[in-house]
Amino acid sequence: MYVVIFRAKTRELDEEYFIVANRMRELAIKQFGCIEFAAVSEGNNEIALSYWPDEASIRDWKSHAEHQIAQQLGRKHWYESYSVQVAQISREYCFPLK
Amino acid sequence: MYVVIFRAKTRELDEEYFIVANRMRELAIKQFGCIEFAAVSEGNNEIALSYWPDEASIRDWKSHAEHQIAQQLGRKHWYESYSVQVAQISREYCFPLK
Repeated sequence: MYVVIFRAKTRELDEEYFIVANRMRELAIKQFGCIEFAAVSEGNNEIALSYWPDEASIRDWKSHAEHQIAQQLGRKHWYESYSVQVAQISREYCFPLK
Repeated sequence: MYVVIFRAKTRELDEEYFIVANRMRELAIKQFGCIEFAAVSEGNNEIALSYWPDEASIRDWKSHAEHQIAQQLGRKHWYESYSVQVAQISREYCFPLK
């Protein structure tokens, strides 16, 4: 399994941000095979994790037309800076044990 | 480079939690080769990312005596649940471009 780690410094977030973010999450999960999505924000720091079965799904999602427009909006309005890291999960464990 | 993704549901956090968390972060960076540490909390959701040069450093850190005690304290007092995922970063990019 792969994870995309999105770390951002946000500017002021307007209503459109939340509409677009929800729409993108829905699209990623319903149409692009995203397995799970988790985001946490504190002040202007955001970490969002999305989980994917393979790198091809991530590439397809990154280059999707509607997502490209959302990325442009993000750079223009909502994000002062961000980084994206793609990583392959080699092991995981949890508490309590499942 | 490797990343350890720690995702937790926290209980009520006391003063000891912050002392231990700071101490663990310092130890990881100064003595175990941790490259970077970033954590974001929202309500009782926490995501903490730590970056490492290799898996050996991560294993050494996980099994360190003082860290083991901190992990036990975490399971007993501070964390309702958590997951740990170890992943190898294959590519990354950022905005603005560096």
